[in-house]
Amino acid sequence: MTRTIVESKSKTAIIGFDQPFCVIGERINPTGRKKLAAELEAGDFSTVEKDALEQVACGATMLDVNAGVVYNSNPNPNETEPPLMRKVIELVQGLVDVPLCIDSSVPGALEAGLEVAQGRPLLNSVTGEEERLEAILPLVKKYNVPVVAISNDDTGISEDPEVRFAVAKKIVERAADFGIPAHDIVVDPLVMPVGAMATAGLQVFELVRKLRMELGVNTTCGASNISFGLPNRHGINASFLPMAIASGMTSAIMNPVRPQEMEAIRAANFLMNNDPHGAQWIRSNKAPVAEGEVEPGARGTREGRRRRRG
Amino acid sequence: MTRTIVESKSKTAIIGFDQPFCVIGERINPTGRKKLAAELEAGDFSTVEKDALEQVACGATMLDVNAGVVYNSNPNPNETEPPLMRKVIELVQGLVDVPLCIDSSVPGALEAGLEVAQGRPLLNSVTGEEERLEAILPLVKKYNVPVVAISNDDTGISEDPEVRFAVAKKIVERAADFGIPAHDIVVDPLVMPVGAMATAGLQVFELVRKLRMELGVNTTCGASNISFGLPNRHGINASFLPMAIASGMTSAIMNPVRPQEMEAIRAANFLMNNDPHGAQWIRSNKAPVAEGEVEPGARGTREGRRRRRG
Repeated sequence: MTRTIVESKSKTAIIGFDQPFCVIGERINPTGRKKLAAELEAGDFSTVEKDALEQVACGATMLDVNAGVVYNSNPNPNETEPPLMRKVIELVQGLVDVPLCIDSSVPGALEAGLEVAQGRPLLNSVTGEEERLEAILPLVKKYNVPVVAISNDDTGISEDPEVRFAVAKKIVERAADFGIPAHDIVVDPLVMPVGAMATAGLQVFELVRKLRMELGVNTTCGASNISFGLPNRHGINASFLPMAIASGMTSAIMNPVRPQEMEAIRAANFLMNNDPHGAQWIRSNKAPVAEGEVEPGARGTREGRRRRRG
Repeated sequence: MTRTIVESKSKTAIIGFDQPFCVIGERINPTGRKKLAAELEAGDFSTVEKDALEQVACGATMLDVNAGVVYNSNPNPNETEPPLMRKVIELVQGLVDVPLCIDSSVPGALEAGLEVAQGRPLLNSVTGEEERLEAILPLVKKYNVPVVAISNDDTGISEDPEVRFAVAKKIVERAADFGIPAHDIVVDPLVMPVGAMATAGLQVFELVRKLRMELGVNTTCGASNISFGLPNRHGINASFLPMAIASGMTSAIMNPVRPQEMEAIRAANFLMNNDPHGAQWIRSNKAPVAEGEVEPGARGTREGRRRRRG
């Protein structure tokens, strides 16, 4: 059974087919959050602190930390991102005890994060691009950490799921050359917006199943991308996540502060038999069901009722 | 591609892997509804009328009609159910134009329904019990209608999904002996309450996949049974349905008046590429998403953003 072990100083998170879905909180990320970027440049970490505490309170299993801010005073992320990554990780792991996911496209920032992160963080990410493979896999090996593998390569992001599967396979094979086992690779098969590509959902469900069956790897995705540009995004996300989970998806980088998506995941955990005795479900839904809420068809199977009657 | 055609006088519903999920409204059913049973015995059909109109207004594809009331004045359903079934079907098809599902354990009531139903109703149901097979399959053949096949037999309902699969296979084979094609069999693999059987969800997902891959049949279930006895049943149902749909389930007998479950199904239709251009989704979610609702990570893929920056 594939298990990816991620650890903080005091806590272990296991990503696996027989585990509750791993929710990786996405909020600590200044990319696309201008206000947060400006705060970080000004040395104000109050939003980071709030996001760390709030995401853990809402049930995040792990927190993604991205320090990808482009300073107005220095536009070179190779210089600015490593020290900021170090600082944010130290801050976050001083506040909360969940494992961290170190997220950057700058190898120097990933290494800076690895140097200060306690336990066994998840590295985010390597791709199938030659330059990335050569830069990141040695870090993965050196620090003995698991890594997110995004299925695009030097030709870009293919719309063909077979090509994305082949890229994932290549990364797993290249990692093996470095002595990195498949259970330390968490593949992101890339989620396209369903509003732009009608087969986006189906592609993910099929890819996740194939990645699990043929490569035996855990999977993750940027879940909210599926609903980009559409009305009632939470409604789409809250169906997408259980469908991906039923297909074998084991984690997602997402916003844990959204109750609709988190409820859908708790129900899916129960339905996948990864919430023993429904303890988590029952704890988070304490009010008993009202009598009038019990529909016909609910008191045993239909055939059972018939037989009692017949 | 498997397609089960169900028709009213003026409308066709197709159950199929490439079709929107078929919602069979369960409300017109006095079993377990004492008040409705008493009304029907007294000749009061106002609840039936209300339930028919409301379910169709809420988006039911088809309506199940069950006349399984046990009269205080005559406890023999073989005498009371056929005329009541006839009456209810005539009433309902005079009010709404969706196809009907004739639901009874009394063969005489099924035949009474078949005699008066316009178009091509779905018959609900046959089981793997010898007596049922011999009583129902000739009716299915004679009236050339599709039928729900419930996967229990003379030994009862097995907790072993392999046995339930074998029962379904037997029904499909016996139907073939009568000249009834597999695309006219809609298998109900039987949904157990997940609160009583921890593997209930997983069993359904695996069975549905296998029924689709190996027998090529459409499937249905009494969906709300999954959450029997648990708090926040709608939350469980609203994850169960998309998970079953992702596994290949093509219809369910359920309460279409529940908005949470119906929203989950509309999202699942979109994600399965069975809602062209998301037209149905967009129509039922007219308010545009507020600016603050757009999370980071949503504006294109993560890697895409990185490349723009790097």
